[in-house]
Amino acid sequence: MLKKHFSTLLNNKPFLLQPDNLSSKVLTINDINPKVKNAEYAVRGTVPTRALNIRAALLNGNHNYKFDKLTECNIGNPQIFGQKPISFNRQVLASVLYPELIETEIFNQDVRNRARFYSQRMKHSIGAYSDSCGHLFVRESVVKYIAQRDNHLLPPDTSDIILTDGASQGVSMVLNALISDPRDGIMIPIPQYPLYSAACTLQGASECHYYLDEDKGWQVTIEELNRSYKNSKKHGINPKILVVINPGNPTGQVLSYKTIEQMIEFAYNNRMIIFADEVYQDNVYTDKKYFYSFKKVRSELSKPYNDVELFSFHSTSKGLLGECGLRGGYIELCNIDEKVKEQIIKLRSMFLCSNTIGQCMTELMCNPPTLINSSQETTEQYQKEKNDLYNSLKRRAEIMTDKLNKMTNIECQEVEGAMYAFPRIHLNKKIIEEAQKRKMEPDLFYCLNVLENTGIVIIPGSGFRQKDDTYHFRITTLILPEEYQMQQLDVFSQFNDEFHRQYN
Amino acid sequence: MLKKHFSTLLNNKPFLLQPDNLSSKVLTINDINPKVKNAEYAVRGTVPTRALNIRAALLNGNHNYKFDKLTECNIGNPQIFGQKPISFNRQVLASVLYPELIETEIFNQDVRNRARFYSQRMKHSIGAYSDSCGHLFVRESVVKYIAQRDNHLLPPDTSDIILTDGASQGVSMVLNALISDPRDGIMIPIPQYPLYSAACTLQGASECHYYLDEDKGWQVTIEELNRSYKNSKKHGINPKILVVINPGNPTGQVLSYKTIEQMIEFAYNNRMIIFADEVYQDNVYTDKKYFYSFKKVRSELSKPYNDVELFSFHSTSKGLLGECGLRGGYIELCNIDEKVKEQIIKLRSMFLCSNTIGQCMTELMCNPPTLINSSQETTEQYQKEKNDLYNSLKRRAEIMTDKLNKMTNIECQEVEGAMYAFPRIHLNKKIIEEAQKRKMEPDLFYCLNVLENTGIVIIPGSGFRQKDDTYHFRITTLILPEEYQMQQLDVFSQFNDEFHRQYN
Repeated sequence: MLKKHFSTLLNNKPFLLQPDNLSSKVLTINDINPKVKNAEYAVRGTVPTRALNIRAALLNGNHNYKFDKLTECNIGNPQIFGQKPISFNRQVLASVLYPELIETEIFNQDVRNRARFYSQRMKHSIGAYSDSCGHLFVRESVVKYIAQRDNHLLPPDTSDIILTDGASQGVSMVLNALISDPRDGIMIPIPQYPLYSAACTLQGASECHYYLDEDKGWQVTIEELNRSYKNSKKHGINPKILVVINPGNPTGQVLSYKTIEQMIEFAYNNRMIIFADEVYQDNVYTDKKYFYSFKKVRSELSKPYNDVELFSFHSTSKGLLGECGLRGGYIELCNIDEKVKEQIIKLRSMFLCSNTIGQCMTELMCNPPTLINSSQETTEQYQKEKNDLYNSLKRRAEIMTDKLNKMTNIECQEVEGAMYAFPRIHLNKKIIEEAQKRKMEPDLFYCLNVLENTGIVIIPGSGFRQKDDTYHFRITTLILPEEYQMQQLDVFSQFNDEFHRQYN
Repeated sequence: MLKKHFSTLLNNKPFLLQPDNLSSKVLTINDINPKVKNAEYAVRGTVPTRALNIRAALLNGNHNYKFDKLTECNIGNPQIFGQKPISFNRQVLASVLYPELIETEIFNQDVRNRARFYSQRMKHSIGAYSDSCGHLFVRESVVKYIAQRDNHLLPPDTSDIILTDGASQGVSMVLNALISDPRDGIMIPIPQYPLYSAACTLQGASECHYYLDEDKGWQVTIEELNRSYKNSKKHGINPKILVVINPGNPTGQVLSYKTIEQMIEFAYNNRMIIFADEVYQDNVYTDKKYFYSFKKVRSELSKPYNDVELFSFHSTSKGLLGECGLRGGYIELCNIDEKVKEQIIKLRSMFLCSNTIGQCMTELMCNPPTLINSSQETTEQYQKEKNDLYNSLKRRAEIMTDKLNKMTNIECQEVEGAMYAFPRIHLNKKIIEEAQKRKMEPDLFYCLNVLENTGIVIIPGSGFRQKDDTYHFRITTLILPEEYQMQQLDVFSQFNDEFHRQYN
């Protein structure tokens, strides 16, 4: 044993002496898949990592911070701020996990009926694997939900639905199946949710950027889609997938019917398929806009545009449920070739199935209590909780836009939907130079300063990509209680003033 | 629009006329990632797919089958057979999902204390995303569990634990990070759990097979490891990861302390790291063997062998919980380079976090009620449920080995652990020719015959890989009630007799 150890030291590899190789580990960073190494995921990047350290310091009390807790605006995580889950949903899930509750009178008849129905359809075993694509009764409800949402136009079949642990898993899984060549291009909106750029890098595809028009409230324009497409083609890239996030993340815009129509025609004309990230479909706050699913608009178009191939992603993490931790969601496959579908399902089956609590939450999202399936009391209670939540989300989105627009050097487009503002921040030369001295992006420098001085965790726009020489940050609109949101925005505003004064 | 359509038909692409292109789809099987296309996953392959069709026929009643329900032995899914979950665990989870239950007297004080503790540590939000690696309080319990299991030798730190949605996700995620070259070799036991070959193909690594010795009860031999290693090197492959499944899946063997020691030395000497799939660590049925974790044996070795780098995977799906549907599990990273760890955590963070119910189930698995943390009544009740379950699993494993060995042309090694038997079946020339006529593997032909005639779903050995010219199948030992297991094994035995008679 000793001999072996010495021989390692002597055979021309004096690893204990070389600074690059101080670690004698077998597995080093040089072994890591370069696609993984190159993938960036800002939502949990530099700022949140620094925030974790600050949180630890705050917890053990040994610190000089001017705040005693963090305000975690880096992620759309409603319940971290104390958003209450809808009680009907949780009562049903509790009963499914412990079916003896169904036989007691603790919960009302509607809860018990629902839980009993789930238990029967799962053969009394929420703890068993479901079919790879998820329990059939959940997929049946997803189908009905989509049919109703889209005026029963070309409704899906249960075989078109795959249940997932949240939408990210679905997006990543389908991309894994569809990318076969580094020249395969994925058109992603800029700014984008960083899952898309990260997944692109991971799968070794080419990112093709189309810029959202900030001055037009972050809308998509067909001219920009065409520019991006032609530019990609010029560089030998073959755009294959058009990603759209509606309502927008991080940008909060809601797409018009007309824009969606044009995007579908664009995809058809260029033999592309569409990835519609529609996880914020229930989060529209403006009275001037309405959520139209890509599936619905596509169904209302005439031949051949209504044939466009489409994947739509949804999740229980957003909307009015905000059940992020339970990881529920689905993929809808529209007009996807059967052999392609088989491959995606095979990939799904390698991880057995999505978690069954998330599956049941998906059923609850798609099939809420109504007068058809529940008593008036249950329906009204559910509606009340939902309306209160919606009104509060809407108020907070409006306050966020309003307050941000009153801050020095900050301009913010209206948050029409989703859960974030993505304001532009004008940073002067001095700030930019200061950041460059520290070898960081100017918006990262700004966000780190906000964090250290206020405890508010926001993500620099560079993590979402942005037009050159513009700077932004993403901040969630979810802070609760509402008075606390007001208060924190005032703290933020004061610091922002100071910051700009300091570098004037 | 019409013009556009015609131009598609006219521009040298008469796709409606070419037989290969009958589908006018943009996305076809030719677009699929070849690594995905080539990946095979037998556990949900040909036989289970056929079983799904039969299940549908049984449900609508329109069939000529001799059975009225399937016996799904294709997968280790305890609760599908009616295995009862442990009540303490489910009571805690129900209370965490609906915390108002904590304030009632429905569940006992120990359940309420546990649920209250979880709620506090999660800031009352099981519906929120946790940190990427999972809630700290769960990782703390995992650390304590491992420390206790391994006699407090080199216990991990919470930063060495990543919570996952089941073990498969963990294996696949780490492999995704570690494979950077098609010549990177992964040494996998043959027969193996098909996740490994599938993940290998998906990541574009090279499979290096080491055969388990059937005649020695499917043990690992060091000679075979060396043969496999040398053979890989000869073919220009660089074995990087040694995969071990202990207790074995599909083979049910439990590795001895000595064998584990030798495997660790082998890995160290060849600069390999170890993937220890230890999800069946609580499923050892023989009195002659004991489960030793790779981590423990490694810690008891002297320098330099106790430095070997190791990933260990565990899950809430197996053991005595059998909570497959809830998707809980963890990865333990032992002596992994910090920069490598960062990359794995980044990958984990792209999918936000594992589901929080699975996380809580992991805490429950690692920190069951004992006299230290709970009342005598709770502890005894828990122990009783656990012992009943264990004894039943043990009985069923023994009955399975015994009954299979009495069947015509079948030989079965002792099921020492895990949840499956992997018997060898001797198929004569006539059967093999019959299968070849149908262009299928002989063991697939056999398993399909078993399915069509008995409703018992078993998986051909070819899906797990096996020595050339040997044939096996995997059957789970989980069938319940126990009398039904007996009865079904008799049905199976009768059919097996008939089958061999038919081709004699």
